[in-house]
Amino acid sequence: MPAPKPAFNSLVHRISPPPVPSVQAWARAYGGAKGPLIDLSQAVPGYPAHPVMLELLGQTAASLAYTGYGPIEGERKLRETYAAHVADLYGAALVAENIHITSGCNQAFICAVMAVAGAGDTVLMTEPYYFNHETTLAMLGIGTRFVACRAEDGFLPRVEAVAAALDTGVKALALVSPNNPTGAVYPPDLLAAIADLCRERGVWLILDETYRDFLPSAGEAPHALFRRDGWQDFVVSLYSFSKSFCIPGHRLGAITAGPAFIAEVAKIMDNLQICAPRAAQAAVEQALPRLAGWREENRLEILRRAEALKDVMAGLPDWQLAAVGAYFAFVRHPFAGVSSATVAEALAKRAGVSCIPGGYFGPDQEGYLRFAFANADEEGIRALSARLDGFTL
Amino acid sequence: MPAPKPAFNSLVHRISPPPVPSVQAWARAYGGAKGPLIDLSQAVPGYPAHPVMLELLGQTAASLAYTGYGPIEGERKLRETYAAHVADLYGAALVAENIHITSGCNQAFICAVMAVAGAGDTVLMTEPYYFNHETTLAMLGIGTRFVACRAEDGFLPRVEAVAAALDTGVKALALVSPNNPTGAVYPPDLLAAIADLCRERGVWLILDETYRDFLPSAGEAPHALFRRDGWQDFVVSLYSFSKSFCIPGHRLGAITAGPAFIAEVAKIMDNLQICAPRAAQAAVEQALPRLAGWREENRLEILRRAEALKDVMAGLPDWQLAAVGAYFAFVRHPFAGVSSATVAEALAKRAGVSCIPGGYFGPDQEGYLRFAFANADEEGIRALSARLDGFTL
Ligand SMILES: Cc1ncc(COP(=O)(O)O)c(C=O)c1O
Ligand SMILES: Cc1ncc(COP(=O)(O)O)c(C=O)c1O
Repeated sequence: MPAPKPAFNSLVHRISPPPVPSVQAWARAYGGAKGPLIDLSQAVPGYPAHPVMLELLGQTAASLAYTGYGPIEGERKLRETYAAHVADLYGAALVAENIHITSGCNQAFICAVMAVAGAGDTVLMTEPYYFNHETTLAMLGIGTRFVACRAEDGFLPRVEAVAAALDTGVKALALVSPNNPTGAVYPPDLLAAIADLCRERGVWLILDETYRDFLPSAGEAPHALFRRDGWQDFVVSLYSFSKSFCIPGHRLGAITAGPAFIAEVAKIMDNLQICAPRAAQAAVEQALPRLAGWREENRLEILRRAEALKDVMAGLPDWQLAAVGAYFAFVRHPFAGVSSATVAEALAKRAGVSCIPGGYFGPDQEGYLRFAFANADEEGIRALSARLDGFTL
Repeated sequence: MPAPKPAFNSLVHRISPPPVPSVQAWARAYGGAKGPLIDLSQAVPGYPAHPVMLELLGQTAASLAYTGYGPIEGERKLRETYAAHVADLYGAALVAENIHITSGCNQAFICAVMAVAGAGDTVLMTEPYYFNHETTLAMLGIGTRFVACRAEDGFLPRVEAVAAALDTGVKALALVSPNNPTGAVYPPDLLAAIADLCRERGVWLILDETYRDFLPSAGEAPHALFRRDGWQDFVVSLYSFSKSFCIPGHRLGAITAGPAFIAEVAKIMDNLQICAPRAAQAAVEQALPRLAGWREENRLEILRRAEALKDVMAGLPDWQLAAVGAYFAFVRHPFAGVSSATVAEALAKRAGVSCIPGGYFGPDQEGYLRFAFANADEEGIRALSARLDGFTL
């Protein structure tokens, strides 16, 4: 009798392969017939990292000072500098002890979730959702519930719907604002109302703010959650240095939470990877104040891109701009009943427009495509017009 | 009625805080009375990274080429170069598709484990164990069983004991060779016999080879597991670039396994952190062949340190060198009945010798201390003599 072949973990085995590489493969199959590829797929800014950022990264990486193991929670100076930055942004009293540095915001999310939920627990999310949040929970055996965010509500959840879902006994509510995939920005009032509900029900509120630096309005705090009494007992905010500094390849993110929460994350991080890469931490610590002006210019540039996209879409009656916000637009395609993957594949291969199928963000999103318009410059966005106009399957 | 405070995940909450920082705190409390601190605690080579390594790290980090997101599995060229390296080392047919790059070997371990086991499953380990393996499994809700490795057996497991434990229905057996904490090197025959058992029972064999480059004998394959038919169905090997290249701060490791296993790991890694930091991958790809001679010199240097330690310990009849191998020694302290943490704390604070308490590696190891002797140079090791001789609590 042949020996049994060892099996894989079914929780992981049944997850589909990562979606981004398959989308990139469609783009590679584009022959160029309509002009250069317009890549609106992965969420990476179309402009390069600043030369100062590269110089700092080069200096710190070449230094012996960062070759050894570092503190699990992150380089002390980066935690201090980042704490001062968020304290300023939110008008709140935040210190280094509120910060844990991670290898990017996906890692911030898995750390935050593991700190509060294990297999058999349930986490509440919004739908459409960021696919890695969904697969992260699935692979950990954590159950999921969803609050629908509808086009007619600007892809924001209704407070009553959140209240009803929280009554079903979830450990945490995970939100993304500005949202991926829709670009929707949660108003501070809505976040406050949702936070009230979480506080009343004893539920953690995990807020992914990866796209925070691309908000339409400058200088206003994205929310006032860090200013309420006792926030440290239930609010956790996640951030990524990938998008704002154009350095996803260097893998850096951050968690802002109460010190007790940070202590739980440190235990998880120690097992997950001991500490985030150190040289990049030292470089970002210096770049954070120095590149403030550059980040503001980029924010304005991306706003211009959003305006260009609105213009273009206004001229394409078959394609509906269901939502456009910081970084992303969620676009209703004209092919009712056709799967979003079929549309996205055809668009990539034949029209040279690469974007992510709505269905990747939830089963009810087949009518949509996600355009990461921040990836393309205004010229690229304007060129969309001719690519989409009259496009047939 | 006050609202309930949201709770932490009990699986994480009940894990002790990471052990290394507490040991480092004892060392910081040493006043210097006996001379400079002899740091035998964390496993980091005492010599610095090679200047060529630093130069390459600086160049790649300063390059725009590595700022974007990279392939989940790792940079293609590093996977190819590393595959050629292990193919040569093990005399086996290994290719890029057998390799997944991770952010260090702790991450390689959690990825490998999650690929085959979820909450409620059981993994078999050896005791003494590497503490992060134990806490990783605990926080995932994966049960653990242990095969004892006894001093009289050179801290190697008995094949019959492994066979008996495998009959209890475990998903995987995790081994560490060369071992942390004991330094024990598993002979190829023992690994072959254990692999036979795993194959018969349909159990994954996960072998952590972090210290592979410090084996006492050069040029011999550490084992022949990659040369047997069907190894890809049940054998997984883990490696770290931290120790061999003296760059733990840059966080790089690797998994060697079958392509189907690598595909499962890619799904996990995408959620865990998308990809390992890219610039360091590009640097290590170039350093791997260029620094082969330097790595061999270091291996010989660490062998000399082991000899120095044997000398020193021979002159200290109260202290017993229970095991000494690649990188680590496991030392029986003279204070029967006293907890190993008490001994290690006193040694650090009063004698300026920092090491890890045996109890951190399992409940039966209170009689021992782990000396990461590779951290200290020969002079430091010789200085141990005066520090330990006549030491009282
Ligand atoms: C909402 C959201 N969270 C987290 C991430 C992960 O970012 P990183 O891991 O590069 O920091 C992304 C990336 O696209 C994202 O869109
Ligand atoms: C046995 C073993 N595995 C894995 C690791 C983790 O190494 P890294 O994550 O730095 O690659 C260590 C570090 O001490 C170790 O001793």
